[in-house]
Order: sequence, then C-alpha cells, then structure tokens
Amino acid sequence: MKTKKVAIIGASGYSGEELVKLLLHHPHVELVAVTSRQNAGQTLAQVFPKFASLPQSQLLRFTEPNAERLARQAEAVFLALPHGVAAEYAIPLIAAGCIVIDLSADFRLKSAETYREFYAHEHPAPELLKRSVYGLPEVYREEIKKSLLIASPGCYPTSILLPTIPLLQAGLVKPHGIIADSLSGVTGAGRKPEVDYLFCECNESVRAYGLPKHRHLSEIEEQLSLAAAVPVTIQFTPHLIPVNRGILTTLYLAPAEHFSTAVGAGALNAKIADCYAAAYQDEPFVRVLTGKALPDTKNVTDSNVCEFAWRLDLRTGRLIVVSAEDNLVKGAGGQAIQSMNLRCGFPETTGLL
Amino acid sequence: MKTKKVAIIGASGYSGEELVKLLLHHPHVELVAVTSRQNAGQTLAQVFPKFASLPQSQLLRFTEPNAERLARQAEAVFLALPHGVAAEYAIPLIAAGCIVIDLSADFRLKSAETYREFYAHEHPAPELLKRSVYGLPEVYREEIKKSLLIASPGCYPTSILLPTIPLLQAGLVKPHGIIADSLSGVTGAGRKPEVDYLFCECNESVRAYGLPKHRHLSEIEEQLSLAAAVPVTIQFTPHLIPVNRGILTTLYLAPAEHFSTAVGAGALNAKIADCYAAAYQDEPFVRVLTGKALPDTKNVTDSNVCEFAWRLDLRTGRLIVVSAEDNLVKGAGGQAIQSMNLRCGFPETTGLL
Amino acid sequence: MKTKKVAIIGASGYSGEELVKLLLHHPHVELVAVTSRQNAGQTLAQVFPKFASLPQSQLLRFTEPNAERLARQAEAVFLALPHGVAAEYAIPLIAAGCIVIDLSADFRLKSAETYREFYAHEHPAPELLKRSVYGLPEVYREEIKKSLLIASPGCYPTSILLPTIPLLQAGLVKPHGIIADSLSGVTGAGRKPEVDYLFCECNESVRAYGLPKHRHLSEIEEQLSLAAAVPVTIQFTPHLIPVNRGILTTLYLAPAEHFSTAVGAGALNAKIADCYAAAYQDEPFVRVLTGKALPDTKNVTDSNVCEFAWRLDLRTGRLIVVSAEDNLVKGAGGQAIQSMNLRCGFPETTGLL
Amino acid sequence: MKTKKVAIIGASGYSGEELVKLLLHHPHVELVAVTSRQNAGQTLAQVFPKFASLPQSQLLRFTEPNAERLARQAEAVFLALPHGVAAEYAIPLIAAGCIVIDLSADFRLKSAETYREFYAHEHPAPELLKRSVYGLPEVYREEIKKSLLIASPGCYPTSILLPTIPLLQAGLVKPHGIIADSLSGVTGAGRKPEVDYLFCECNESVRAYGLPKHRHLSEIEEQLSLAAAVPVTIQFTPHLIPVNRGILTTLYLAPAEHFSTAVGAGALNAKIADCYAAAYQDEPFVRVLTGKALPDTKNVTDSNVCEFAWRLDLRTGRLIVVSAEDNLVKGAGGQAIQSMNLRCGFPETTGLL
Repeated sequence: MKTKKVAIIGASGYSGEELVKLLLHHPHVELVAVTSRQNAGQTLAQVFPKFASLPQSQLLRFTEPNAERLARQAEAVFLALPHGVAAEYAIPLIAAGCIVIDLSADFRLKSAETYREFYAHEHPAPELLKRSVYGLPEVYREEIKKSLLIASPGCYPTSILLPTIPLLQAGLVKPHGIIADSLSGVTGAGRKPEVDYLFCECNESVRAYGLPKHRHLSEIEEQLSLAAAVPVTIQFTPHLIPVNRGILTTLYLAPAEHFSTAVGAGALNAKIADCYAAAYQDEPFVRVLTGKALPDTKNVTDSNVCEFAWRLDLRTGRLIVVSAEDNLVKGAGGQAIQSMNLRCGFPETTGLL
Repeated sequence: MKTKKVAIIGASGYSGEELVKLLLHHPHVELVAVTSRQNAGQTLAQVFPKFASLPQSQLLRFTEPNAERLARQAEAVFLALPHGVAAEYAIPLIAAGCIVIDLSADFRLKSAETYREFYAHEHPAPELLKRSVYGLPEVYREEIKKSLLIASPGCYPTSILLPTIPLLQAGLVKPHGIIADSLSGVTGAGRKPEVDYLFCECNESVRAYGLPKHRHLSEIEEQLSLAAAVPVTIQFTPHLIPVNRGILTTLYLAPAEHFSTAVGAGALNAKIADCYAAAYQDEPFVRVLTGKALPDTKNVTDSNVCEFAWRLDLRTGRLIVVSAEDNLVKGAGGQAIQSMNLRCGFPETTGLL
Repeated sequence: MKTKKVAIIGASGYSGEELVKLLLHHPHVELVAVTSRQNAGQTLAQVFPKFASLPQSQLLRFTEPNAERLARQAEAVFLALPHGVAAEYAIPLIAAGCIVIDLSADFRLKSAETYREFYAHEHPAPELLKRSVYGLPEVYREEIKKSLLIASPGCYPTSILLPTIPLLQAGLVKPHGIIADSLSGVTGAGRKPEVDYLFCECNESVRAYGLPKHRHLSEIEEQLSLAAAVPVTIQFTPHLIPVNRGILTTLYLAPAEHFSTAVGAGALNAKIADCYAAAYQDEPFVRVLTGKALPDTKNVTDSNVCEFAWRLDLRTGRLIVVSAEDNLVKGAGGQAIQSMNLRCGFPETTGLL
Repeated sequence: MKTKKVAIIGASGYSGEELVKLLLHHPHVELVAVTSRQNAGQTLAQVFPKFASLPQSQLLRFTEPNAERLARQAEAVFLALPHGVAAEYAIPLIAAGCIVIDLSADFRLKSAETYREFYAHEHPAPELLKRSVYGLPEVYREEIKKSLLIASPGCYPTSILLPTIPLLQAGLVKPHGIIADSLSGVTGAGRKPEVDYLFCECNESVRAYGLPKHRHLSEIEEQLSLAAAVPVTIQFTPHLIPVNRGILTTLYLAPAEHFSTAVGAGALNAKIADCYAAAYQDEPFVRVLTGKALPDTKNVTDSNVCEFAWRLDLRTGRLIVVSAEDNLVKGAGGQAIQSMNLRCGFPETTGLL
C-alpha cells in the first residue's frame, strides 16, 4: 500500500503527542513534519523522551508552523490547535488540495451562527463549513471517505453521540430531557501551565466545571438534532477527575415507550439490543457490553474503543447508558486517524488495534 | 463540662478509624473501648500507627465486641458495623440505657417493609425503628437531642438530602424526576480485601456501579418524601473514582415554576438563595457557595462540612445543584459525632472544627 | 494564656496555606495579617474555600506585604517566601523587634560563604546569620526560646537530620559516606504553574531531580558537621513521587563498630535503641518505630510527627534508617509553629496534636 | 515467517495479563492456551474486558493448567506463576521438548544453595538449573537462542543489572559497596486481594518494605558477581509508590578510579559513556540518556525500554546511576517475549515496538 506523507500542526499538546505516537507506529504513513512554536528546532525525541527509541524521533525536528511549506510536504495534515487558530491553517491547506483533519472545534458545526453563540467570535471561514464533514466514522463513514476537510469530534461529544444517536434515529428514546453527566481525565484540560491543573490541585479532588453551557454542547446538539430530526437541547455537566486519561459519561434518557413491568422492560431491552446491534455489531471500535458488565475507563485507555452498557430502571422508567472512552484516542487522535484511514483508503483499523 | 465515656464497636474499618481519630481529639469524651474481632488484643497504636503519638492509643486495646460489657463501660456507643450486624448490638445496648449512634443502615428507615425490599432480609428489630431518629442534625436536631437511638445517615444520602430537602419543603422544585449522579472515593467501599478495590484496579479507573437500585435509595427517598409530603422516587447513579475521600453529587432538579428569561431566572435564583439562607445560614457545617465558585471535594476533605452550589440553566429550564462532602466525616464519623454532641449537650461543633 | 498576634508574609503557597490552617486553629494566637501580592484584597475564604467555615476566614483579607505595617500589627511574623526574598522582610521586622520565623533558607546557614556557593548570590544580610537559630526544636530548643530570628529547617533536612544527628553525636555511625535517598510529594515543588508539575506530568511518574548538588545539602551538611564535630559531606538524591504530601527518606549509614554476627548486631541494635531513646523518648513529635513496623508517609500526613525505623544489615554491615514526615507540617508549617510555641512560652505541642 | 503456538500458564495476574496483551498483538505467534484455576471456563474477553475487541479474546477460554495437554498444544510456554509452583510445570514441559520461558524466580539462580537460602525451601528441580539461561537478552543473547529453559529476570534485577553490569565488566566501578534504592509501582505486588494493596492504603502513601534482605538480591548478586568476577554483595531497598507501573532505581556506585577535579570527572565521564556505548548503542531496548535528561517512569511505561542516566558527584566521588523501566514489560512480559523472539528466530523487537 502506498505510504502517505502526513504532518501535524500543533504537536506538543496531549492530543498532538497521541497523534505522534499513533502515526509513528502506523504502517502506511510517513510523518514528515511536526510543528510547535515553542519547541521549534528540537527533535521529537528531545521533546518526547518516550519516543526516543524510535529512529524517526531522532530525525524529525519540530518546525514553526507554515501552511504553505506543509502543503508541499504532506498529503494529509492534522490540526491539533486551539479553536479559532485551526481555521487559519485549514484555509490555505484546503486551497492547496491537502486533506485536513482538524481536531479543533472550528469545522464541527454546520451553522456559523451556532459557532458564534458558543465560541463568542465570528467563524473564521464560514464557507468551509459546507465542505467539512463531522469526523465520526460510525455515522459519517461514506462522507469522510470523500471530504477534504474532516472535523474530528470532541472527546465529550464522542462519548455522548455514539450511544445516543442510534436510539434517537430508531425513535426508541425521546429527544427531550436528555442529560449527559461526564467525567474527564485531566489531559482533557490540555498541557497548560495553570494552577488549577497542577498535580496537587487535581489529586484527591473532584469537581464540576463550566456549568451550565459548555462549548461542546453546540456540536452535540447539532448532531443529536440531525439524528432525531427535531431540535434537541441537552443538559451536560462535565467534571474533572484525577486520572490522566478517560471519559466516563452517564446518560439519562426517557424511553419513547412507557414500561412499568419486568416484561415491558424485557421487550424494550430487546429493542435496544437490536438497535445497538444493527448500528454497531460490525463496528471495530464500539463495544456494547452485555450481562452484568459496566464500562470502566481502564478498559478503554490506550485504545480507540468506545464501550457502553445500558440499564432500564423499572422504578423511574428511565434508560441509563454509561459510556467510556479514552479522551485522547477515540476522543481525539485515534478517531482522527480512523478518519484518515478511511479517507486514504487504508483499512479502517490500521494502526489502531 | 462532664466527660462522657464512649465506645466504638467495629473500629477497624475506615469509618471506625475516622471515629477513633475524632474521638481521641474530642475534649469532652473519653474513648474507653474499641472493638474488632480481627484486632482484639492489639493497641490502637499497633493497628493504626498514625495515632501512636497520642498517649491513649498506647493504652487502649481492641477487644472482642460484647454488648453487655460495653454497656457497663460506656454511656454512648458508636456502631460502625455492616448492615444487619449493627442491630444485634443496638438491641441490648438500648435496653441497658446506652445512647447508640449507629452508622449502619439498620435504623435509618421508618418502614420495615422498605428495609426488607432494599436489604433483602427481615428487619432484625422492627420495634426499634419507631424509637430511632435519622441523625441528620440540620433536619432532626431537636429529635436527636432526645433519642436513645440515632441512625446516622449514609454518605451518599447526606450529599443528596442537604441540598434537596429545603427546596422540596419550600415547593421550589418538583418532587418528580430528580436525578442524583454521585462520585465517591474508594474509602466508601470499606477496608475489604477484594480485587476490585486494589490500587491498580482503581487508579486510572472510573466506573459506575450498582445500577440502577442502590440500597441507599431507600433512606434517600424516605427522607425526600417526608420533605415533599408526597412519595418521591429518584434516579441515583453512584460512581467510583480514584480518590481516598470525598463524594461529589450532581443533582438535576425541575423548578416548580417555569423560567425562560434571564429575568425569570434571576427571580428564581433569589428565591433559592432565600430558601437556602433560611435553612442553612446559621448551620456550622453547611456551606452554600456563591458567585462563580463550584464545590470541590478537596475543599471539604477532613472537615465536617457539606458544601454546595447551584445553577439555573436557561436553555433546559433545569436547576443543577452540585454538592461535596468528605464521605468519612460529614458522610460518616463526623456527622455521628455531631449528633453525639447534640445528644450529650456539648456544643454542636465540639471536636469538629 | 495571653494571645499573640501573628502574621504570615507569603500566605498563598502550600506552606503558607498550611500555616494559615494551623494558626486559625491555634488557641493562643490571633492571625492578624496574611500577605500575597496576587491575592491582595481577597479574603482568606475566597482564596482558600476550604477555610470558609471559619469566621476569621471571612474577615481577614490578603494585603500587599509591607514590613513596617506588619511590624506594628504583629508580634510574630512567619515568612513563607522564596529564598532571597525572605531576608528583605526579615531585616526590618527584626529591627522593629518582631519575632521572625522564616521558612525559607535565608537564615539557616551559619556561613555566608556556603550560602553563596549553594544559592549563587551574596547573602542579603550576613550580619543576621549570627543572630539566627536553626529552628529544629529537638536539637535547638533552648536557643529557639530566646532567638528573635528562627530559621525553620527545610523538609528534606528535617527528615535526614532527626534520625542522623543522635547517631553522629553518640559516635555510633561514621561521619563519612552517608547517603540520603529521599522521595517527596509534589507540594514540595510549590504552587507554581509549570508544566513539570501538572497533574498529568506527575501522575503515573517517578523521577529523580536536581542531581547531584541540591541546595538543601548546605544546611544538612552544616548541621551534621556540628553533630559529628568533623566536616560531613553527604550524598543526597531527591525524587518526585505522585502524592500530595509526605517525604520518605532512606538513609544508608556505616556503623562505627563492625558487626558480622547476629550477636554483634543485637548489641549494636541495643546501643542504637538507647541512643534514640535518650534523644527522643520524651519528644512529642518524633516516633521511633519498633518491631516489624516501617515508616509510611500516610501515617504522618497531616501531623507534625517525624517517624523512623532502622535495620542493621548483617550481609553488608550497614545501618539503614527510613524516616517519614509530612513535608508541609514537620517539614514546614508545623515545625515553624512548634518553634513559635517555644519562643512564645506556649506548651510546645499547642495546636499541633 | 512460520507462526509459533504459545501458551501462558497463570495468565490472570498482572504479568500474565501483560503477556496476553503482547502475544495477542504479536504477528508471529498464535496464543493457543491460557490457564487460570479461578477463571477456568471463561473467555479472555470475560476476564479482561479490555481485550474484548480482539476476536481471539472471544474464542480463547481459560483452562485448568495441565502440563501434558499444554505440551501437545504449544511449542513455547510462558510460566507466570508464583515461585516454587513454576518448577512443577517446567519439568514436564521441558521433558516434552517445549520451550519454557519462566517469569518466576525458580530457574534464575545457578546455585540451588542460594535458592534455599533466599526462598526458604529446597529447589524443586536442581538438575534443571544447569540447563536454564538467565533471560537478560542484552547479556545472554546467544545462550537464550539455544536454551529450552529461559529464566526471565525479575523487575528489580533488570533495573539494576542493565546499568551496572557493563561498568563492572569494564572495571570502572568497584564491586563493593553498591547500593540500589528502588521504587516500584503497585502491580509489582501482584493482583492479590490483601489490605496492604487496597487503593486507599497505597494512594497518598510511600513506604519501604522487605528490609534488608529481599529475595531478588540472590539473582542480582549472582549476576553482578559474574560480571565482576568476584563475589558481590549489594544493599537493596525496595519501596512501594502509588503508581500502577514502573520501577525507578537509584544506584550508588564507587568509581574504581578516584576523581577530584572537573577534569578528572570529565575523563571518567568519557570512559563511562564509551563503556555504555559499547554495551548498548545497538540495543533496541536500552536507552542511555545524555545531557540534562533524567529517567522518568512515564517515559518507559508500556514500552520494553530500560532507560538510564548517570552523574558523577565531585563532592562525594560517587557515581550515581538512575534507571527506569516498566516493571510489567521490560521487567516481566516484554522481556520474556524478547527472549522468545530470540529463541524462535523472530526479529528481536517483533511485537515490542
């Protein structure tokens, strides 16, 4: 299989580092450039000593980001940049015909208005929103194969969308009143030198943050609305917990059909099982747990899998779904590479198993 | 002030250890007995090296539990025993006129039937249920002062009841549809040598458990129903997170009055603030956060405080309340001592600030 | 007992925060001022929400540090400032007759030359070095009672000096070839927003640092030399481990007398036991473990105790001593208050048990 | 390349689980059997949910261990069993012509007498000691290629031997007075349900253990003695630290030649650098750090690399070497597979990069 040349703009954060790791081990790509303003001139091995035993890490040096040069060097470019900054690079790269896989939120929304509402500034390239595809392969596989601009989903959204979309599409749950309560590891906050994320401020600490209107709500609701074919507004509470990696999301859903007996619950359970099987039984990176098993972030850490389990509560009539994923893999770098595999014609799981 | 002689039955678990620590420092009590089958014969200092610098820890030895002997030794006895076992000791101690402060679930319910439903066996002493008081001082202060049998609340219930009861009593939130999503430190699982609670199974792990019908629901719902004056059924999801201590609970509530504008939310916020102020402004161990502050378990660890904050969500119309407490202090030993202080006529905060 | 008015300059770091906590609970002092450039104007409760339930925390506001004003407000002033900065405040405070308890390294050395060698700048007030006392109460109790300038020891030094000084004084170990291998919790690095101390950089990480010439060596060696009455040079390796609090030091010592049999080891063990008993049996904050027990940082966390145990190794002829302390208490704030108690005529353990 | 059929006896502990993970991803082996008394009958996916997305994990079931059956099924068998138990299986497997890679201590020593001294029972198969090879590929590569019985080294020994052996062989350090101070993650204690290894007993805790005569000393000293060509006795202190994985070892060594000036240190540094380069510059799994870098367990976690750095201390004349490895990979499963690769004629790094 022909090797693709790829680059990462913004490779010194946690998502960037995960991309570096996965791409250095990917059999069909050559990582030809990594950029980082603060680390320009240093080798990958110097910045990330853990990669030092891979020969490539001794050769490849961080450079200042330069879209034009990168467009000449690489056929596909990953953007692991803050919101707002990513678009600046996407525009010239797309113009130059590069495949762009953007891990920021810049191209995840279809609506520039929603972008302005949630990100508090004008969208930097509204004309590109039409050309971008939301990079959730389990939902947009065919579109991803053809798009030049893939907007890889956020970590929280992935953990919420994968378990919810099939249920909404099948009409098994009501589109109103959805609650997503999420717990995230601290890499989710990025490699920022801020007191709030110091070891001693996070260790032996648990806290909610960003209540009640987190930016990720915009892409979650846009995608859920598409699945439900009606506008969906959800409640979302993110929490910070003292682990490096992992997101656990507990979803509270209202089944469309009422059940009040074990028999009724059994029938509904069967429908949910069928719905998830139809959606995911052939998906390599979605694991629907059965029996007594419940998700545990340690079972998905360092993997591209999102796993989930559900329970019907006879007492309250609710459906509870709990999902787990690695925020840096299925929630960031791994999912981006899954999209790259699709876009480049590689087997979808290449470099991710 | 006259010193009371106190004893702890079951002093080798995490709650028992916390009681030991607090009682050894309490100025008005003398800890005269601690029991533990497995540690009988050893001094407190041998079992808990951290207390070795306190002279009392070198003198006091663990004994086998014997209710009759303890009834002669102590005026007040704490039971830090598993559910079902506590009642065996409570019966003779009460008969002998001892004050019993039970940290198990055995006497927290008024209904023996509910006990049977949730604990899967007949209640061992249903006649005592009438005599027991639910040991939540902020709600049952006067009753605690007079009761011989104080059923100290569970850790999850405390974190849910304190923020919710005043709102229900004031009719500010609907009694239906309440969701409590709780995160607990691992001491909550007890000092049990099970693989699930090994360091390497909990560290870098987050998981829900016991879905959907946790035993603590019974006491939570009984108390909420009393507050609302209608039967209340709630959704409760406990999670295990890698900290030693602390519970963070996120509550999803439906305001009784609809609001859809910032003005409406402002008015409702004022009512909630008034409601909480009326309930808690003079409470030494409840801290209602204002401004941008959100609870963090590290701010209540090693203290008897339950702190919480709320947010109205204009988009969903919901009220979100987040509470934090130390599961071993306000959620166990500290709260038990708060009740003891009330019952014995000591200032309520003695030994707890 | 008459209350003393005290102040803390630099109260927003971890040591400062520990001082605040201990002083707010101290029965014989009134905390009248806390300073912090970045937090000036805010109350203690705003900066440290965990103290919000203490009334004093709502009243006391951080101010800009001003030595003259503080000298009028307080009788004793704690300096929790970086090396080099502390001296600036000590000079006018001493001149004004305040008791100064300095937690920095500025006055711990007797030799201004050694200071220059290890801290790479001229000592800012060499004339004060003569007037300062090294604030290790177990060694300098009488001097502390009389000095206006108490240089409270560093966290690593305390963990090394307490177990070693009596052995050197008694001639039981050789003054040459001492190795101290220390493991420190991350609060030891201070509340600095640097990438190296982010949660995700420290969690699941262990590393040595600052090899081979750590600044604390200067005070350790000066004190050991005094104890041995010959110049002592030691090997010291600090490591950073993922806990908030605690230092564990493993000391490798050469007994002065050779032993090669169990009988010989038994005799030497008896001498060591006697030596430690003579030094510490009445010390409230030193705990010499016996039997099979070995130190564990969790047994000294949140206490002012330094505990240690020793083993003779028949195979190598060495004496191994392992010590544990809380770096923020016996290694910083607690020890400083122990000195304050001595200096102010309070019982030495006041506020520390 | 022809695929080898392999089996793991004792696959439910942490080392066994790591072997499973590495072997499921190894391109040249087929994992045909895994045994575990307690999990017999269950699939790999049931016991280790994290592997559930690999098809093999759904098919392969744990069985009771049966050496005869395994000898028919597999060409190479890994023993991840406790000391003493491993030999029972090794004897019939060797007799049947299987390659045996033993992760226990049973065949690491050449001397049955030393085994008895350190393991407190007679060696169960002394005649096999002659046929076994110490499975440290960097030292015994050629022997490993030919042996039927490979005794894979312990985690502590690997971290000590790799940095020390070349220095002893080259005569650069004295064989006497060596000290190894090691810090280990909690997986090193195994998946044993004991109170000492519960999350809450290890988290926020650091402790030494097993002083002063740890069993691993026997193999360390045997190997160092071979390298030095004189008997070597070392000081070794293991500590337990709250991380899942990783060992950090700090070694205190005495250079054979005295140095007391920067020039002398420079010359010696050059010799050490040459010595390590000669030993390891082509080794894929040894990383000698240069410049200011010091080892950090997080840089070797989940890799088969042992990395180390050294410093000469002009003040003490000592050489300090700090090494880091993942105790479950280079310290257990990874190293065992490295040996398997050598023995089976696969490229040495297969499945390990």
